[in-house]
Amino acid sequence: MKVGFVGLGIMGRPMALNLAAAGHSLVVYGKRSVPEDVRAAAATVVTSLAELARQSEVVILMVPDTQDVENALFSEDGIAAGLVPGKLVIDMSSISPIATKEIAKRVDALQCDFLDAPVSGGEVGAKTASLTIMVGGGAEAFQRAKPLLEKMGKNITLVGGNGDGQTTKVANQIIVGLTIEAVAEALLFASKAGADPARVREALMGGFAASRVLEVHGDRMVKRTFEPGFRIDLHHKDLGLALQGATSLGLSLPNTAATQQLFNAARAVGGGSWDHSGVVQVLEMLASHKLA
Amino acid sequence: MKVGFVGLGIMGRPMALNLAAAGHSLVVYGKRSVPEDVRAAAATVVTSLAELARQSEVVILMVPDTQDVENALFSEDGIAAGLVPGKLVIDMSSISPIATKEIAKRVDALQCDFLDAPVSGGEVGAKTASLTIMVGGGAEAFQRAKPLLEKMGKNITLVGGNGDGQTTKVANQIIVGLTIEAVAEALLFASKAGADPARVREALMGGFAASRVLEVHGDRMVKRTFEPGFRIDLHHKDLGLALQGATSLGLSLPNTAATQQLFNAARAVGGGSWDHSGVVQVLEMLASHKLA
Repeated sequence: MKVGFVGLGIMGRPMALNLAAAGHSLVVYGKRSVPEDVRAAAATVVTSLAELARQSEVVILMVPDTQDVENALFSEDGIAAGLVPGKLVIDMSSISPIATKEIAKRVDALQCDFLDAPVSGGEVGAKTASLTIMVGGGAEAFQRAKPLLEKMGKNITLVGGNGDGQTTKVANQIIVGLTIEAVAEALLFASKAGADPARVREALMGGFAASRVLEVHGDRMVKRTFEPGFRIDLHHKDLGLALQGATSLGLSLPNTAATQQLFNAARAVGGGSWDHSGVVQVLEMLASHKLA
Repeated sequence: MKVGFVGLGIMGRPMALNLAAAGHSLVVYGKRSVPEDVRAAAATVVTSLAELARQSEVVILMVPDTQDVENALFSEDGIAAGLVPGKLVIDMSSISPIATKEIAKRVDALQCDFLDAPVSGGEVGAKTASLTIMVGGGAEAFQRAKPLLEKMGKNITLVGGNGDGQTTKVANQIIVGLTIEAVAEALLFASKAGADPARVREALMGGFAASRVLEVHGDRMVKRTFEPGFRIDLHHKDLGLALQGATSLGLSLPNTAATQQLFNAARAVGGGSWDHSGVVQVLEMLASHKLA
């Protein structure tokens, strides 16, 4: 299949390479530099996004934020300018669920299919084609996209209509971020109370406190291994999407807000590129610092 | 073995009955009413705690709070007055880890062994002898207690010295409480954004958001089944222990504090006896109420 791929960063590059390795022809956008391995794997490098859309059956986006998706699609000479009826656009970026519903309507008006399909699993998941993919959109579009998604991920779920994929990703980031913070508070408490946090973590793994986060991120906190993994900068952005959503939708997310502020504090002390489990170091600073 | 059992409430009663069923002779304190089934199972009912200690090799406490443990042990004609060297005291209540270290020293000064051995697993775990038991104290005392503990629980860990059992229990309650709150924020966000929270929960179970809480309490939130389980009143008290500990130890637990306040709000609107997953209803009120 001819697949246009927009966004060749830490995530997009290995995802595009996995599609090429599976025999799909890549069309990539090359006004800026294209990574050498992608250039070698791609059938075509074009210098306009409209041209990329013209040459592709399916266009995949993997860009940083809501505004980047909107620009790539709808700016002058953007993807929408090259879409003809029947094409499929898959946005795998993690962006606003609310904006996504509007974007889907505009693509739908061009008689093209749109799926939101954000991922979790990070760079490792992207490289090993084992991403979790949370999809929103129509069932037919999902079936059409599935053979491509299966080359990039393993746990692929159609959650509901457009926007629901992004909503699920936001829900994921709320739970993961707040559970990491919970484990950090608990292990710091244990450590300051004089217990061995490693043994406390083990004792807790058998009961209701058990989670993937206690297993993986709790272990990182005990072993002090804070190289990413998933960077605090990115999780900070994702919780920002949750809080923007809360404002638009009219609801209150108190612990999401507090946790985003702790991520903010981590960035302030130079920890934006720590693994998100490194937020424990902010709580430790609050416990050990003395005012002058 | 002759076992004195103090505290025959929702938890203590089935725990004592399990010990009796395993062939141990119970000594219970009967100034106030003793449940009929315990009276029938007990070899002896005494009317003073000192007398209970005199007649028992091991004394087990299962009472509501720190002050209750201190009173039962050290008030006039309390347990300590009946302890002679070589006896073993096991406190299975959930109380302050810091106070526990002092209590252990006072029992130690009487040449008796002391273990803190709080439990999780609730009334069901107590009835089915499947409690998780987190133990602090000496290795010899632990070996001595183990045959008794095995009649009440399944997942039994010696975490460290005295106080470390209570510390582990507090850590457990922090993680469980804050993870429940995280799942509540995430599913409320999903629902208000128009997604089906049941499908969102399922999609998340495969990834890093997976936890026992998402499985059990997330399902309760979706199905709206808030009869306990574990009551908000009790979890509110347990997070209070965490926050008192944070004050004594000099550390900051921001999300524990916020979550305790949400439990407080639940109690304020008549939800003290809801299952702790019912805290989602407080967030829902904050999302749907309009100021007059």
